[in-house]
Amino acid sequence: MNTEAASTEFDRAVALQRVGDGRWQAEIQDGWDFAGTPNGGYLLSIAVGALIELTGRPDPIAITAHYLSPAQPGPAELDGELVKAGRRHATARAVLRQNGRVVAQLLGTFGDLSESPASGIRHQAGLPDLPPPESCVAPVASPGGFLPPPITERVEIRLNPAHVGFAVGRPHGRAEMGGWARFTDARPVDTHALPLLADCFPPPIFNCGIALAWVPTIELTVHVHKRPAPGWLGEWFTTDHVAGGYLEEDGVIWDETGDVVAVSRQMAILPAAKDPK
Amino acid sequence: MNTEAASTEFDRAVALQRVGDGRWQAEIQDGWDFAGTPNGGYLLSIAVGALIELTGRPDPIAITAHYLSPAQPGPAELDGELVKAGRRHATARAVLRQNGRVVAQLLGTFGDLSESPASGIRHQAGLPDLPPPESCVAPVASPGGFLPPPITERVEIRLNPAHVGFAVGRPHGRAEMGGWARFTDARPVDTHALPLLADCFPPPIFNCGIALAWVPTIELTVHVHKRPAPGWLGEWFTTDHVAGGYLEEDGVIWDETGDVVAVSRQMAILPAAKDPK
Repeated sequence: MNTEAASTEFDRAVALQRVGDGRWQAEIQDGWDFAGTPNGGYLLSIAVGALIELTGRPDPIAITAHYLSPAQPGPAELDGELVKAGRRHATARAVLRQNGRVVAQLLGTFGDLSESPASGIRHQAGLPDLPPPESCVAPVASPGGFLPPPITERVEIRLNPAHVGFAVGRPHGRAEMGGWARFTDARPVDTHALPLLADCFPPPIFNCGIALAWVPTIELTVHVHKRPAPGWLGEWFTTDHVAGGYLEEDGVIWDETGDVVAVSRQMAILPAAKDPK
Repeated sequence: MNTEAASTEFDRAVALQRVGDGRWQAEIQDGWDFAGTPNGGYLLSIAVGALIELTGRPDPIAITAHYLSPAQPGPAELDGELVKAGRRHATARAVLRQNGRVVAQLLGTFGDLSESPASGIRHQAGLPDLPPPESCVAPVASPGGFLPPPITERVEIRLNPAHVGFAVGRPHGRAEMGGWARFTDARPVDTHALPLLADCFPPPIFNCGIALAWVPTIELTVHVHKRPAPGWLGEWFTTDHVAGGYLEEDGVIWDETGDVVAVSRQMAILPAAKDPK
């Protein structure tokens, strides 16, 4: 967790320097964003490092972030506190601040998934129908003006060919976004990195004709069921409900063995420009 | 919010007495439980009262509880703190303690849904196929030994006839539980009461043959999109993923006008007795 040990780009980007009891300094890096604002999953992965230390448990089980102000690349402070350490789980909270402003308030329950039973996995609806990575599409600059966001240099993304029409003005029609992701530098995705990987796809509402604008997240929760096996992660995001100026975004993430490793849900503010009506 | 004004059973059950700056005394009531343990949604509604006061905003938008110890009927203390008040939203956190133990750590973003646009509501898959309340089934004692839980005396519940087989040993086969709910004493369901109403159905896993045991919630998040119209609330819960000894439970709640008023998701511990394999 300390800066010396940080050997990959992700590890450097989430490195923490302990500066006191329950207090860390972070350096939010440029390049983990869609349009200049570091993404919420990246900030959550930064906080997970502190919560792992606070709880003394290696794996996030259920982690929640409420986002209060957009972050910027640069120094940030994390203050955290252990709420309770039980036998199976421990819970801690933390607050991420930048220039005196609260960026995110975080709450996480942690445990140890090393002994996680491989049996007993049950997926009611099965996995979404996603073509294999080699049949999916890497985001590239399009004649329509779409530019791959900076985060795609660090996270290799292959989108479902059925879902990339939004980039050329031909959205799919359903609020879905599926594809594959892994680190470009082949760093394995552990449960520390899962929150980042759970928030690296274009919003599914892009595929139902809603403006290609930044969708500010209010709240993001990631539930982790299993440490991912090496390789690609399959990801599938949907927005089933848009109401009251808010939207949901639900994600399911599985590894190459076909096991669901995490689910995510976020509530975000509907960009005002175009109402989906 | 104070005890004098509490005229209905729900209002008495969530009444708070302010005992200091950001500090309240609550009295967890008997009878809001499934099997002796006050339900998580009830505790969340208690906390919402304090968070409304802390934020000065009338409606929860996104509220999260991490549950650390089971509560019991009796006195409890809430300590809370405003994290940030913005123009549209304000965020606060709170902790619920009983006999010195942390019962739940809570985090909520609040706003004002009185001006919530009725237009712009979009439900991708439409609402679940739930028969009207008069064609649904009130929980009653069954020859198989099923007893309606105490909460059903306070919250009137009508379950989808297709989903009640679990009570007589004939589970439906899919992890689904749908039905209607409202307060028995006709108190309108406002956004203060929605968390309770979001957690008053039998777990959907009962319908795929998993033991009828208490399912301990680790984390519950409720996203509120709209103040409910008067009348019944339609509710539909599913468990799509069971893995690693954990399960998800996703809920969607709509009012009689057909608008989705809230969605909920919880992560819970799979009861150990029977593994669904």
